[in-house]
Amino acid sequence: MRRFFVSPTQMAEDHFVITGKDAFHLHRVLRLGVGDVIIIAAQDGRTYRGRLVFVDSKRAEGKIEEEIEEKREPQTKMTLLQALPKGDKMDQIVRQGTELGLYRIIPVGTERSIVRYGEEKGRKKRSRWQKIAEEASKQAKRSLIPQVKPPKSLKEALLSDENDFDAGFVFWEKEQTCSLWQALKKAPSLGNIRLLIGPEGGLTEEEAKLSFEHGLQAVTMGPRIFRTETAALVAAAAILYESGDLGGF
Amino acid sequence: MRRFFVSPTQMAEDHFVITGKDAFHLHRVLRLGVGDVIIIAAQDGRTYRGRLVFVDSKRAEGKIEEEIEEKREPQTKMTLLQALPKGDKMDQIVRQGTELGLYRIIPVGTERSIVRYGEEKGRKKRSRWQKIAEEASKQAKRSLIPQVKPPKSLKEALLSDENDFDAGFVFWEKEQTCSLWQALKKAPSLGNIRLLIGPEGGLTEEEAKLSFEHGLQAVTMGPRIFRTETAALVAAAAILYESGDLGGF
Repeated sequence: MRRFFVSPTQMAEDHFVITGKDAFHLHRVLRLGVGDVIIIAAQDGRTYRGRLVFVDSKRAEGKIEEEIEEKREPQTKMTLLQALPKGDKMDQIVRQGTELGLYRIIPVGTERSIVRYGEEKGRKKRSRWQKIAEEASKQAKRSLIPQVKPPKSLKEALLSDENDFDAGFVFWEKEQTCSLWQALKKAPSLGNIRLLIGPEGGLTEEEAKLSFEHGLQAVTMGPRIFRTETAALVAAAAILYESGDLGGF
Repeated sequence: MRRFFVSPTQMAEDHFVITGKDAFHLHRVLRLGVGDVIIIAAQDGRTYRGRLVFVDSKRAEGKIEEEIEEKREPQTKMTLLQALPKGDKMDQIVRQGTELGLYRIIPVGTERSIVRYGEEKGRKKRSRWQKIAEEASKQAKRSLIPQVKPPKSLKEALLSDENDFDAGFVFWEKEQTCSLWQALKKAPSLGNIRLLIGPEGGLTEEEAKLSFEHGLQAVTMGPRIFRTETAALVAAAAILYESGDLGGF
């Protein structure tokens, strides 16, 4: 069944509305019509079976029939603080991170990030990444779309919802002692965690220290050196494996 | 220090020889000369400190000074049987799989693989992937380069060194019961294992059954659907995490 993400403003009681290019896609490309059933994914992570009662190229309306128990979302909510990488690598990180199950992605400008975005360019990029996250959520059959924030400074990113996290980890090449494995086994809870991944040239000593001040713990993922776009994915996979979110215990 | 991979024919007692484009690179690009020290990575996974005694653009020679205890290779030797994916996704799988620590990669032609390579094209592709693996090994500072085999049929791939493996897993969408987590906890040893990842359209029922006949166990990585290029990486990361190869216990 086809899956459509709807915002709270598109739902009222047992009624839903789909507009814009989603309506066009539903009508003209998928050729769905009155009486057809689709999956409605609401922004709170709930999913419903919905039956179409009106369809044209600009608007589709329908009735929620019942909630579907999907349990597709990880119990661990992961926020990735990703230092802006070179070229279009952020596209790949957003796409694969979404497939894996990231909850939120904050692109971070760091001292050794090659790319810098002004406010306008940052907004455009964010909008592109959010679209990639939406596409990847559909394809991975997730119940929610990870939120991609506009690029922030490291300090801003570390301050963002700071008190919500149970634990946080920074992957820093100078940390050779504590492994991610050890840190995860010791963490009191893996309910809501954040990860900071540096850029190609690594985080500076000052940046690492700043992250420690905001409660992040330095960890290593072993002796092989990962590229930045691989590091985020490997860390997220290991954490989801540990929390039982890569297939149950 | 710069790292050069050498084959057994390039080493004799405490002497080593570097030729071809590596010699050119060493001499002309890195501008190394007599007396300079480099890291010699032998194909058995051992690494040495070597001092140059002769250098020109076609040939460099040197003396092994001592073995370096690097322990950069995972204890778990993983062989990836990867169904040929679309486009140039295999490049990404080889690159990231090498960073992670794969031991060997066998590209596999399956019923739903879109691309097909004849013998000549297969040889060319293999040579390209082997080069990508070499580059990625250098960058990840690995002690050995994963071997990329020429594309094989699934049957041939399953027969390849079949008796060497302690365990094998196939990621099959129809398996919803046994998680990778459960399978890894039950595996008697993670010394030498193999993974089979299907193409975009999935493995057929017959192909899955064929893999079971050759000792592979069907496992799931949870309710989110991974693209083929993400699946290999996530599976490898989870296994290395479990075996302690992503940073020690």
